[in-house]
Amino acid sequence: MSRKEFRDLSTPAEAREAVESLDLTPDPETVPLAEARGRVLAERVDADLDVPGFDRASMDGYAVRARDTFGHDETDPATLDRVGAVHAGEEPSVTVEPGTCAEISTGAVLPDGADAVVIVERTTETADGDRIEVRTSVAPGDSVMFAGADIAAGARALGPGTELTPREIGLLSALGRDAVEVRGTPVVGIVSTGDELVRPGEELHGERGQIYDVNSYTVAAGVEEAGGDPRLYPHAGDDYEAMGDLLVEASEECDLVLSSGSTSASAVDVVYRVIEERGELLLHGVSIKPGKPMLVGRVAESAYVGLPGYPVSALTIFRTFVAPAIRRAAGRPEPRTATVEGRMAVRERSDEGRTRLVPVGLVEGGPSEAVGDDDGATGGADADGAAGNTLVYPVDKGSGATTSLVEADGVVTVDADTEYLAAGERVAVDLFSPDVRPPTLFGVGEDDPAFSRLLDGLDRPRYLAVGSREGLRRLREGVPDVAVTAGPDERESSARSGDGTAARVDAVDLGGWTREWGLVVPAGNPREVTGLADLIDRDLRFVNRDANSGLRASLGEAVATLADERGVDRREVVGAMDGFDRSVRAHESPARRVLAGDADAGLGLRVTAERLGAGFVPLGEEAVRVRANPDRTEKAGVAALRRAVEGADGVLDGLAGYEPLE
Amino acid sequence: MSRKEFRDLSTPAEAREAVESLDLTPDPETVPLAEARGRVLAERVDADLDVPGFDRASMDGYAVRARDTFGHDETDPATLDRVGAVHAGEEPSVTVEPGTCAEISTGAVLPDGADAVVIVERTTETADGDRIEVRTSVAPGDSVMFAGADIAAGARALGPGTELTPREIGLLSALGRDAVEVRGTPVVGIVSTGDELVRPGEELHGERGQIYDVNSYTVAAGVEEAGGDPRLYPHAGDDYEAMGDLLVEASEECDLVLSSGSTSASAVDVVYRVIEERGELLLHGVSIKPGKPMLVGRVAESAYVGLPGYPVSALTIFRTFVAPAIRRAAGRPEPRTATVEGRMAVRERSDEGRTRLVPVGLVEGGPSEAVGDDDGATGGADADGAAGNTLVYPVDKGSGATTSLVEADGVVTVDADTEYLAAGERVAVDLFSPDVRPPTLFGVGEDDPAFSRLLDGLDRPRYLAVGSREGLRRLREGVPDVAVTAGPDERESSARSGDGTAARVDAVDLGGWTREWGLVVPAGNPREVTGLADLIDRDLRFVNRDANSGLRASLGEAVATLADERGVDRREVVGAMDGFDRSVRAHESPARRVLAGDADAGLGLRVTAERLGAGFVPLGEEAVRVRANPDRTEKAGVAALRRAVEGADGVLDGLAGYEPLE
Repeated sequence: MSRKEFRDLSTPAEAREAVESLDLTPDPETVPLAEARGRVLAERVDADLDVPGFDRASMDGYAVRARDTFGHDETDPATLDRVGAVHAGEEPSVTVEPGTCAEISTGAVLPDGADAVVIVERTTETADGDRIEVRTSVAPGDSVMFAGADIAAGARALGPGTELTPREIGLLSALGRDAVEVRGTPVVGIVSTGDELVRPGEELHGERGQIYDVNSYTVAAGVEEAGGDPRLYPHAGDDYEAMGDLLVEASEECDLVLSSGSTSASAVDVVYRVIEERGELLLHGVSIKPGKPMLVGRVAESAYVGLPGYPVSALTIFRTFVAPAIRRAAGRPEPRTATVEGRMAVRERSDEGRTRLVPVGLVEGGPSEAVGDDDGATGGADADGAAGNTLVYPVDKGSGATTSLVEADGVVTVDADTEYLAAGERVAVDLFSPDVRPPTLFGVGEDDPAFSRLLDGLDRPRYLAVGSREGLRRLREGVPDVAVTAGPDERESSARSGDGTAARVDAVDLGGWTREWGLVVPAGNPREVTGLADLIDRDLRFVNRDANSGLRASLGEAVATLADERGVDRREVVGAMDGFDRSVRAHESPARRVLAGDADAGLGLRVTAERLGAGFVPLGEEAVRVRANPDRTEKAGVAALRRAVEGADGVLDGLAGYEPLE
Repeated sequence: MSRKEFRDLSTPAEAREAVESLDLTPDPETVPLAEARGRVLAERVDADLDVPGFDRASMDGYAVRARDTFGHDETDPATLDRVGAVHAGEEPSVTVEPGTCAEISTGAVLPDGADAVVIVERTTETADGDRIEVRTSVAPGDSVMFAGADIAAGARALGPGTELTPREIGLLSALGRDAVEVRGTPVVGIVSTGDELVRPGEELHGERGQIYDVNSYTVAAGVEEAGGDPRLYPHAGDDYEAMGDLLVEASEECDLVLSSGSTSASAVDVVYRVIEERGELLLHGVSIKPGKPMLVGRVAESAYVGLPGYPVSALTIFRTFVAPAIRRAAGRPEPRTATVEGRMAVRERSDEGRTRLVPVGLVEGGPSEAVGDDDGATGGADADGAAGNTLVYPVDKGSGATTSLVEADGVVTVDADTEYLAAGERVAVDLFSPDVRPPTLFGVGEDDPAFSRLLDGLDRPRYLAVGSREGLRRLREGVPDVAVTAGPDERESSARSGDGTAARVDAVDLGGWTREWGLVVPAGNPREVTGLADLIDRDLRFVNRDANSGLRASLGEAVATLADERGVDRREVVGAMDGFDRSVRAHESPARRVLAGDADAGLGLRVTAERLGAGFVPLGEEAVRVRANPDRTEKAGVAALRRAVEGADGVLDGLAGYEPLE
């Protein structure tokens, strides 16, 4: 096997330098004002006209010669002849001679002779309407904006490098600019590698090991966010010639080419060889986790960065090294880094010998969890002002998992020489963006269809369907706000099996419901399965759920009862079931295996069977309970969940086999 | 005069409620994944396939039956027959029987029979290549990602209301989704009112009181920023029928119609009548400054908000009341409010009786300005961690000025019953966006073409060309970092005129240059002006600069010298000059008046005359000096400016009449 080894890894600093040495900066371009928002000015803009372009009334009233009002007031008004009127958008047809005035509206041209405006509230029309009493004294310039007072011709209005927000658009409008020269948008080509990748929307053949191409769209979205213009190139296959031609083609059309997609060694090898032979390789391999197999170089006419294949690695390398270069090329300022301080909720080992960027989730603890050492709290990026209560937990499902992207809020950087982060240790979390806020509710536990619907009505909840057993374990560790558990009645269960963990957790019960569970079978139940005994006595293939699920606990209870009835050992019953150990992860997975023809019966819920159009053999009911961390019952998200659980009847009505708890 | 009076003003809270009562929410829409970034999910997305869709090797190595490796290690390797290979994207053609293994690459399908992968680094090929020595023991599942382990079919992937960042795009890609249902983008029509308004890019007739339409593009950019889709409607004129038809047409095409543009009473009256008669008026007039004349209602089929005419007022009302409604309709979360604490640099009166939103600028003070009371510092939104040093100064050039938009960083809200903000008082500034950072350098003073070019090379400077005298005044107040002054040699000047303020300021001199000043005359000098005496002795019309400018000080010096020579009083000389009191604001303004035929000579610089193709009569040289606040010399922006001034020779070389200071 010939595989590229990355023995001489570069440091993160060297990788940064290598990327900085590439030139991605495109030429400036001229855009219409209506499309200029968010762009960065490439030119310096001087005013080439006065704004306003004339002496302008800034109030409704009468244009006067200020001198005519001197010394007058409420008790001794000046009386002036009205000689006409000037409205906004008109050329004045009158001249204000001594002793006269002209009606004027806001925005109108101050007529010749006048040097001030008296506001209408300080005037009175005489009965005949020909004369105006002015009940105040004004100074020259009062209620007048002189020509050029906003900005005068020749003055510097905006400098190069200015980001154009609505405010700058306003000034450019005032100057009459309908187009501006802005920094060009770096064009970033994304070349997808790996014969196993299929574009989303196309048909996937899992049996051939195909997977959807995650990195292309993810990185494209990242390019857009950084101010670049992403171009997806069609996949060319992993042979050397085709890949080489594609990379060279992309380099001619783009300022930067990224290759991304595959974790397969052959695809990586091909790209590596193309860059070495048809470009220039500046760096391969960086001492960072995730992201080690990063390439930096040039190919034909553009800069090149090879991203690792795993989505988490690819996005991490992109965010850490590539996005800053795209922003720089686009002239965009570095975004204000949003950092939140928190405490590690659990110990995290890190004996890697390279810098680790650990994706982490955040959860706001309750008030009683507050601890003394609050001096370092940054507070600003923390909406609730409770940085001292922020718990930080690692989200590490492996670089291959895309879900860990959405289950994390940011990244903790762990130095190469740090062996571990202790539970309770203060850490700084770089949020994925300054807008990231910790979820209002962090729940873990059973994947229950009714609970899942309740989540739809909550604001920014996070829920990890890790199963009832694992959910309770985490609740005991104190990290999540709530755990959802399902399973047989606890008192009975713990009395029988001794596994009464649920009952012993010091949690606050927020309520729940029951759900009907049993065996999901093909539609029409062709093998005429009647109950659990058939799985033992007949030649039926079964698919189980994993040991964390409440369904599995209920099944275990039913197996124990059956063993008691038969007077045999529980293990004997289990051993007779073909598939008791064939456990799958999600609540619909056994049913889907059955429908795919891989099994005759699967552990599942009536609601799942109905949803998927399968048959169902009921075995019992189990309780689903929502349990809260006792320190968090006052937290807004937990309170909102409690209300949702209390009002869950509408949701339960729509789900087969669900009943409110008595 | 019939004008709408806003006597019964609503409170800001009532205005907010009125806007909230409008329904702007558009229908959800389906967008391709490539265009989904930044949108908000309208559907709940459940996985409808397992990810990965098969048991997947997560490392390069050999697929084995774990049991075959049990008990083996470096000293006692297991030897397995190699029966084939599986690459990513291939359907396995082998089965791993006991005692065998298959080469496997990362991402490939685990072949039947195998339940683990041994990483290649722990294996050795035998000499003949047919067998593999496995130097470790692995457990079932090692280096394998099981089908559905990332996310399983039927599991909840993303909830409605989720904002789609690159991370969520990644998960949607993994699920094979190439389109998603997202919250619709509210369409916001912008109807421009006021006969005096001209679209940017079109020809402007200032003599008729025309001005460029600032609000349309500014508000459109604000709509876009808030997540709406702005539509500019062509201006229809201010007559009732045309305006009514236009508003009704816009209402049929938009979720919200904004009218915006004119300050003229007639235009405002027309819109007011249209809404009253062809729609429903919910609110007119709100007790807030700026922004009082706000309208809220419905017109035909859509929601309606009438924005005030002045740009600052329009954008303030838009940001305060309308943008939140657009964000809500688009399903966007409220942006994290960025607030910075600072101290008022000067006293600000506010006896208005209504809530005031004061646009303010920020400047970071120097370390020696730090003051004791730092406990309330929020810090987070303050890049330098120096909130206690942030000085806040009001930017109030009147609502009619567009430049005050770009000279401010945010807004301080002053309650209706607050009479004033004291200098030194702590205030909270709501930044215009969380990305706003105080300028790196805040300068004030003379509008000098050379200095203006130096600014182009600095990162985010702010410079207000208020003139030398006003610049020095502000430097003495301690607000800006630097002041740029121009004028006659100070020692002479102060000795002669007693006006030696510049010399007496305790400022640090960062260097400077000299510039040639004199009279700008039409090209070819048709009136054969030879010097200052001609302006006194002949019938020539002159245009002066304002009293704050250094040029005016140099002229004053020259006038004094001439008066001395003639043995007359200075006032006599000035009185004989037609136009000594005709002063204009910006450094090019007198020259432009001359070129427009309004005058025979104007005070100005040689560089200006050359730039505008005018003639020039030199009268002398004056020094331009850059002076720093002594507390701020260590500030990075000031240090960068000092370097720029020291290296200014290249800039000076390109400017006529400029010389380095000796």
